[in-house]
Amino acid sequence: MEPSAKLDRKNRTRIRQIVGPDHCSDSSEDLFLYAYDALNRRYLPDMVVHPGSAREISELLKLANEARFPVVPRGAGTGLTGGSLAVDGGLVVTTRRLDRILDIDRDNMTVWCEAGVVNGDLQAEVEKEGLFFPPDPASMKFSTIGGNAAENAGGPRAVKYGVTRDYVMALEVVLPTGEILHTGSSAIKSVTGYDLTRLMVGSEGTLGFITRLLLRLVPKPETVRAMLTVFPETRMASNTVARIMSSRIVPSTLEFMDRSAIDCVKNYLDIELPDDAAALLLIEVDGRATSVTEQMATIQSICREVGANLVRAADSEEERESLWTARRSLSPAIMKIRPLKINEDVAVPRMKIPELIEGVEEIARCRDLIIVNFGHAGDGNVHVNLLVDPEDRDEVARAHSAVEDLFRLVVSLGGSLSGEHGIGIAKAPYLAIELDETMISVMRRIKGALDPNNILNPHKTFDFDPSVTSREFR
Amino acid sequence: MEPSAKLDRKNRTRIRQIVGPDHCSDSSEDLFLYAYDALNRRYLPDMVVHPGSAREISELLKLANEARFPVVPRGAGTGLTGGSLAVDGGLVVTTRRLDRILDIDRDNMTVWCEAGVVNGDLQAEVEKEGLFFPPDPASMKFSTIGGNAAENAGGPRAVKYGVTRDYVMALEVVLPTGEILHTGSSAIKSVTGYDLTRLMVGSEGTLGFITRLLLRLVPKPETVRAMLTVFPETRMASNTVARIMSSRIVPSTLEFMDRSAIDCVKNYLDIELPDDAAALLLIEVDGRATSVTEQMATIQSICREVGANLVRAADSEEERESLWTARRSLSPAIMKIRPLKINEDVAVPRMKIPELIEGVEEIARCRDLIIVNFGHAGDGNVHVNLLVDPEDRDEVARAHSAVEDLFRLVVSLGGSLSGEHGIGIAKAPYLAIELDETMISVMRRIKGALDPNNILNPHKTFDFDPSVTSREFR
Repeated sequence: MEPSAKLDRKNRTRIRQIVGPDHCSDSSEDLFLYAYDALNRRYLPDMVVHPGSAREISELLKLANEARFPVVPRGAGTGLTGGSLAVDGGLVVTTRRLDRILDIDRDNMTVWCEAGVVNGDLQAEVEKEGLFFPPDPASMKFSTIGGNAAENAGGPRAVKYGVTRDYVMALEVVLPTGEILHTGSSAIKSVTGYDLTRLMVGSEGTLGFITRLLLRLVPKPETVRAMLTVFPETRMASNTVARIMSSRIVPSTLEFMDRSAIDCVKNYLDIELPDDAAALLLIEVDGRATSVTEQMATIQSICREVGANLVRAADSEEERESLWTARRSLSPAIMKIRPLKINEDVAVPRMKIPELIEGVEEIARCRDLIIVNFGHAGDGNVHVNLLVDPEDRDEVARAHSAVEDLFRLVVSLGGSLSGEHGIGIAKAPYLAIELDETMISVMRRIKGALDPNNILNPHKTFDFDPSVTSREFR
Repeated sequence: MEPSAKLDRKNRTRIRQIVGPDHCSDSSEDLFLYAYDALNRRYLPDMVVHPGSAREISELLKLANEARFPVVPRGAGTGLTGGSLAVDGGLVVTTRRLDRILDIDRDNMTVWCEAGVVNGDLQAEVEKEGLFFPPDPASMKFSTIGGNAAENAGGPRAVKYGVTRDYVMALEVVLPTGEILHTGSSAIKSVTGYDLTRLMVGSEGTLGFITRLLLRLVPKPETVRAMLTVFPETRMASNTVARIMSSRIVPSTLEFMDRSAIDCVKNYLDIELPDDAAALLLIEVDGRATSVTEQMATIQSICREVGANLVRAADSEEERESLWTARRSLSPAIMKIRPLKINEDVAVPRMKIPELIEGVEEIARCRDLIIVNFGHAGDGNVHVNLLVDPEDRDEVARAHSAVEDLFRLVVSLGGSLSGEHGIGIAKAPYLAIELDETMISVMRRIKGALDPNNILNPHKTFDFDPSVTSREFR
């Protein structure tokens, strides 16, 4: 492959010198590998490197500012909105070699780790010390902590424990211009200076390249108990959630499925579901054993009082696993309906879920589409899955119109385009539905102040440019 | 009083037109009133206004950018680092009239309120609905929510519940250039765009004027129980904190006093304290009744095992109140020793408290000063109080040297200059002890991007200018 205008031979040589010849590649095979992420769109980078330190990343960024080529940070490539795609070519920089857990501090309940550590590996290591790292995105077996922080990932446990943002205390970040920035403090409470830690978290790799993180941990809960409940009306599920919360119980999981999602999974369940199943809740409570038992009993009463037509508690770890089968079999079951799933992780105020589901059902009818909804009922974060056949051009077009309908509905309910996946390129065309001009202008001003040459992860979120992103690789 | 160069007659007239003649003043009496805050330093503003809306504040800021005069936001003036002082004159803009609680949403557990609402009033109102707003700075009976957010205030409950930042979901902010910005979302989870909400929180009124807030609430805990325990060694108190946490209990309060603080308050207590009292912990646990009882028992065993020489649980609300007497009588008791208290709210990793206390004792010896330490043991946030006679110039000078010693010690322990009070002008001269050049440069770049004319709250934190702040009013 001929060096593109973005990276001439001289710069390729300099890049090789910075990271070492064993840690970079521009072979077609490797570039293909790094051309896509979980969004399922493809853009060829010019080169891929796996640096071993923040210092090397700093040198790469300084070179990029001199030579004006794009630099795209990449963790495990599990992102659903295209945040790690080199939409305009340039250099993909991975955190593959930054994979060390550096220091688990049991007494202060913190851990320092590098950005490329896989979330699940970190969880396993800290749990050996009786500690707990709550953020649990569905991708946790593969996705990296650096990527989780860049996207501010959530997960089912967010309803009780919050999202990645709530666990990042300090960061080592390479700025777009190459300086190495240290944000935050090892002290849990610190108000010295602007909160640059949280400005970086969720900035989708556009303001800095996260290389190292100090994470807050909590004690590992003693017990977890699960139950499954089914309602004949969506509104009953929302009312149940509200009543659970107002009875001073915050479950660690409050997963929701609508009628279409229940239809997808009912064959995977050991349990006979009632015919009239409009909404399902998978509820978990964690904490001290005595308290968990008491809370489970309260929740069961609430479900029955509100009108559940099935309430099933798991009495053992095996039964708990079997309840989770329903949730876990959802994605594969959905893929049997249509090969392409457009997953929009919208979020609304918790009590607006019934209106959201009704609205989505209306959109599905009008646009003649199959839409399956599930998600995190406790924090109003619903995954709206539009199922389409990518070969059916008309269906694809109808789906794109439906996505816009959905976002307008969500914003009219006081909600947000994305609860946890980010904007990237997937949601960028719709950003102005939620954010007004002032908000977008402030983001541009901050980006301009930190990345004057627009080097780091360009053409994402507010910097979306259809003339660039339409040049997809086939 | 003659109009100063900062605000000529024409601009005074325009300001009067914007807010209305009843809501502004440049009488000497009023200017004196707004010349100081809880830092106890004095700077005369040129004018004070009490606008009634974000729109008026927007007009004031547009005028200020045209005419180039400083604008200083002010809540209740309870800040301890001088954040609301008009150090370079100009216009003080209060949130006095922005005092409405707009909407308590019980089911979604949120509240919209204006910036001038007093924290304690908000707490009382939401508690009527069975809800709970955890941030509880010592000033909560007077301080405003807007000021709490601008400073990212903490309080004793932060160990379990986090700080103000953790409860702000969305903001209405007037930018330094006058545009009205709406950050965040009514959805609990939102990752659309940069986290400008948390960039504004803790920015000490330098990046935007907060006018309205959407706050997250939690269910009001069913029960609160308190206990007091005393140890013959500081290290025992820290070990107790670590053992409580690792036994999966997160108390709602873990207040700490060192030997000198205990000496100050022992006469105010109903309880006979042991002679050998190096450290005291005031511990509270909240939650469901059964769980609280169990946790209290566990904590008492831990205290005894670690070596406490007094463990006293409160069995009633009256006894709980009497234990809090110790904590509440501390500030007045301290003031009897010396008229001036320099309160530095440093923060270190939790387990570094013994090293911090030993270091502070050493500083007190070397600098021949009385230093009293108390604070929030659970999150390593210690209030180091240097007691000085302001008439004794030598003692004042020694205290200033001791503050610098303290900050160097704290940073060497991985800590932070401020856990909850902010930097303002009080800690600004020491900022570079904690933050490196890159961090300060990034803050400057962001400030420059949002406030190109340096209008909003100038000369604070990284923009500190001794030639300005030395022009104090006597």
